[in-house]
Parts: sequence; C-alpha cells; structure tokens
Amino acid sequence: MLKLSEAGGEQYVIDWFVTHVDTANLPVGIGDDCAALPPSDQTLVTTDMLIENIHFRTDINRYYDIGWKSVAVNLSDIASMGGKPTYTFLSIGLPDIDIEDVNNLFSGIADCIKSAGAILAGGDTVSSPAGIVINVTALGALGPAGAVKRSGAQAGDSVLVTGTLGDSLAGLQLLLEHGLAECEQRFAYLVKRHLRPEPQLSASAAMAATGHVKSMMDLSDGLCKDIRRLCKSSAVGAVVHSAWLPLSEQLLAAATQTGLDPVSLAASGGEEYELLFTCAPEHVQAVKGAAEGSGTSAQVIGEITEGPEVVLLNISDQQILWPDPWEHF
Amino acid sequence: MLKLSEAGGEQYVIDWFVTHVDTANLPVGIGDDCAALPPSDQTLVTTDMLIENIHFRTDINRYYDIGWKSVAVNLSDIASMGGKPTYTFLSIGLPDIDIEDVNNLFSGIADCIKSAGAILAGGDTVSSPAGIVINVTALGALGPAGAVKRSGAQAGDSVLVTGTLGDSLAGLQLLLEHGLAECEQRFAYLVKRHLRPEPQLSASAAMAATGHVKSMMDLSDGLCKDIRRLCKSSAVGAVVHSAWLPLSEQLLAAATQTGLDPVSLAASGGEEYELLFTCAPEHVQAVKGAAEGSGTSAQVIGEITEGPEVVLLNISDQQILWPDPWEHF
Repeated sequence: MLKLSEAGGEQYVIDWFVTHVDTANLPVGIGDDCAALPPSDQTLVTTDMLIENIHFRTDINRYYDIGWKSVAVNLSDIASMGGKPTYTFLSIGLPDIDIEDVNNLFSGIADCIKSAGAILAGGDTVSSPAGIVINVTALGALGPAGAVKRSGAQAGDSVLVTGTLGDSLAGLQLLLEHGLAECEQRFAYLVKRHLRPEPQLSASAAMAATGHVKSMMDLSDGLCKDIRRLCKSSAVGAVVHSAWLPLSEQLLAAATQTGLDPVSLAASGGEEYELLFTCAPEHVQAVKGAAEGSGTSAQVIGEITEGPEVVLLNISDQQILWPDPWEHF
Repeated sequence: MLKLSEAGGEQYVIDWFVTHVDTANLPVGIGDDCAALPPSDQTLVTTDMLIENIHFRTDINRYYDIGWKSVAVNLSDIASMGGKPTYTFLSIGLPDIDIEDVNNLFSGIADCIKSAGAILAGGDTVSSPAGIVINVTALGALGPAGAVKRSGAQAGDSVLVTGTLGDSLAGLQLLLEHGLAECEQRFAYLVKRHLRPEPQLSASAAMAATGHVKSMMDLSDGLCKDIRRLCKSSAVGAVVHSAWLPLSEQLLAAATQTGLDPVSLAASGGEEYELLFTCAPEHVQAVKGAAEGSGTSAQVIGEITEGPEVVLLNISDQQILWPDPWEHF
C-alpha cells in the first residue's frame, strides 16, 4: 500500500484539501502565508487539539470518524454559544501512514466542515512520528443578539439538555470491551454517538432565536463536570433530578444486555456534544418547541438555585453522590 | 521537582494564562466555550503546529525559547502580509514534565504575544504522552490597503530581503555539533537567531505603509524553496545573485572558524523569519528607507523575470545549482 510520504507528503495534504474542499470567495484563501477573511461582526473563535491514544485510538475509531470528530467538537463549541460556523483552520501532524487512511481521515474532516456550511480557509501540515495530532480552529458568526454565554443562568431557571445523555460513554465502553466490528453490529447507534458526534447547530440556532436561552454550553466533559462549570460561571447552584435525565431506547436496551448503569453514564459521560442550557420556566415550552422544530428534543433535568451547591437527586428526591467524571483513555 | 500533574494539570495551565496574560476587553474571553471577538475589518488568520523532535528538541532548545518560537512563527506570517497581530489562540499538548519547564515554556509564549501587542484570547490544553505539541492560531488586522500577497510580483521588480540570511541554519548546525552550552558561549548571536526568531512586524508595517511592496512572504523554509513559491504564485521567474545575499558578520566569523559555507546556508537555510518581497526598482530606496527606519535593513538580491525559471548566479553571473533545501530533523 502507498504511504503518505510516497504520495507526496505535505504537498499531497495541501493538494487534497484544495481539490476537495469548497473554497470561499475569500480576499486571500489557501496558498498564502495567511488567509484573509472579509469584514465581520462579532466573531466566535474556538480551538481543540485531538491526540492519538488520548482522544482516539485507530483500533476502535475509523479514520473517517476521527476526521469528522476533530471538526465536530469545535463546531459544537460554536453551537453552544448560538453561532453559525464560518471558517475553519486545520493543523495536522501525521505519521507516515497508508494513503487510504489519510484519504478517509481527510474525507471525514471535509464532510463535517461541509455539513455545517463552513469553509476550510487554511492550515498547516507537519510530520508527527509519534501519532496523529489534529488541531482545528473554528470561527463562527453571531446574530445581532450576540453570544449565549455560560454566565447567564439565574436562580429559578429551568435546566435543560438536548437529545439524550450517556450514549457516547456507553458506546466507548462497549467499543473497549467488544471491539469495533462486533459493536457496529450490536450497538450501532451508541457507537455512532461516540465516534461521529453531531454538533447541535440547528437546535442551537432555533433555540437562541427565541431569545429565551439565558446560558448555554456543550456537554464535552460530562454533565457532572460541565454543569458545575456553568454554575460557577453564573455564580449559582443547581438541583438535577437523575430520574429526569433523557435516556435513549438504545442505551436502555444495551444496559439490559450488558449491565451498564444508564443513569450513571448519563450523569458522568463525556463527549456527548449535546447542549446544556437554562431558561425561565415560563419559556420552557417555547424553547422545547424550537428544539423539536430543528429535529431534536429538549428535556428539563433540574433547576438553578442560589447555590453554590450542585446537587443530584434520586427518584425519591434524596441527594446522591455524582458519579466520578469520565476521563479520556 | 513538581510535575505538571501534581501542580493541577489542565487547570494549572488555564490558571497560568489567565493570571499572566493581558486579557482583552473582549465580548467573551477565556473561560467560555469560545472567545467572541469584536467586529473587524478584513482579518488575517494563520496557524502553525510545532512538534517535539520535529521542530524542536529539548536538549538544544530552552523551554522559554520553544514557547517564544511557537508564537513567533505565526506572527511572522501576519507580518509577511502586512498585518498587525491582534488575537492568538493556543492549543498545547504536554507530557507530565517538570512544572519549572512548563512555566518557562509558558513565559516564552506569553512574552512573545505581549511583545507584539497581541492578546491570548483562548485555547485548549491536553495531555500528550509522546512529546510536546504546540499549535498557535494568530489573527491580524489589516490596514485599508489590504493584504500584501505572494502573487503580486511582476517582471522587472527588484527582489529584496530584510536582515541577513543563513544565520538560523548556521545556529542549528552549530547547536547539533557543539551543544547548547558551548554555542551560547561561542555563537550566541547565531544560536539566538535560530532559537528565538524575531517576527519582522515593524519592518513589514513600515514597508507596507509606503504602498510600494508588490508581493511579500516570510522565509520559513529557506530562500531556495520560498522564492519558488512566490514566483509560482505570481506566475513569474527570478534571477538571484548569490553574491548579493546579505550575510551577518557573525555568520562570516563562524564560517571561518568552522568551515561552514555561508552562501549555501543563506540560499537554503530555513526558519529565518526574514521577509522576502518585491517592488519596482524606482521604489527600492523608499522601501529600504522604511525598513531601516524600523530598525532593520533591506537588501536587493535579484530581479523578477518573465520566468518561469528561478535562477541562482555566482559572482561571475554564471548559473549555479541551488543548494538542497533545508529539512527539519
């Protein structure tokens, strides 16, 4: 099989993206020292680095999915502040791997960028003998209302999440136990939720457009960690009802088969890329309607309090311990 | 000695930068999912990834200098298009190294950002067992004249470079042969040129302000490679006089002591971070004056031709082969 070095190395990478990615009508695009972007209103910027054997393993991730996820995690940050992705910049460090794997990796990157209506405007490619390293910087445009921050939650707000929780961590645990091939047969949905997350851009835009979302962030490190961050930013606390956490049928079915604890997974699982947000109780229906109109769901899981405690309750409204937060490999 | 993990890991990194780096009056700064930047005119964006044992080695680089250089190479890209650095974003992958080394690395990053009047507006920190990985994304503001691109060179233009060439590669070769301690004694200037490059921001701004610079890029991969890129972008060729390449006294002295070939180093040496640019012959004096007014020099090294050949001439105006391009470790 052809290796990256035999296919042209750095020049192959540049040529691939110039050929496969929509190029914007930029003042300066790929091929100069910098990209030049047109004038803009407030711009969101986020950046995330993914490192082989920390954030992904090539035995349980397909190359396409590694590429997709490296972009998706950044787009999720843009979504979490109510923005629309515009431009992305890709730095990639590659060992001398098979060109077919390289092409699949790049296809995942390009498809995720395209799916969000964004553009790859520049990047850097380097050799990385110790493993794949991918850094994506994503920019996003904001509407006239500006960014939805973490810091806007107020006591009395309802706390909501989009979609369902725990799927991604369940997918990862099943992958680690049963391997990719078996899991794609038995647990396709959960595995896809881990390997190819969907940034909640449509839901974010629809919900932010209601004007009622007071604080928002994406769930990347698990509800137990991330809700504490939102509360800390807002100088509030929260009560979360474990019985209210939205669980997918697939997670419940897998739990029955494998003995996984779905509520614990939902409370601790990272890499969900669902949205955690707050609004006044009287606006819950409007915001839920906006989420549903965009093709997902939104569910109340608790309430913001004066704080500072962030409390988890069981089905009998007794306080229970949060599960330990999820960690990377 | 204290390890990064014992000092707090990821949270230590975030706290360090929040404490040590000037925070802008941004709509949203460090601590949310994205930074939000104020409205802007055309914006330059560049990103570069540096990987341990490819772009630097901790035996011949000081941690401070690794940090400095990881920012400087991006600021040099902003300079090469006539921009002024504004915001930077840092993604950093770290093994569990000594906290003193971490602090020195971060000080180099923070000082370089500060020296350019820029701001660290966000980033990501991850663990990286296989070595240090640093990705910086830098944004820059453009004046009303817009970006100076690679593609503006025209036949008849004079080709110029700022500063002197070959110093950085000489510094690297001496470091590899004699080690850091001896080189800092014997070849301090050349070693500093390699380890702590200065982006030519003042010269760029002064020269661009004359309105006479028609094409420009920074010398990161060596004159022999980079002039071909500039010529290809502009669909022209060039004649370069090897005898006209500006050489520092320190390079000439080291060449005498060590047998280095200064002209070959100047024609092939990468990581110079000097500016390569063209202007009409009648504007050479004005542009040189602008460079000198900003504290450096600019020197004509050749002329743009119809092309497409990019030719190197010896002192007798006979065509000679370009030296092999410089490569990373």
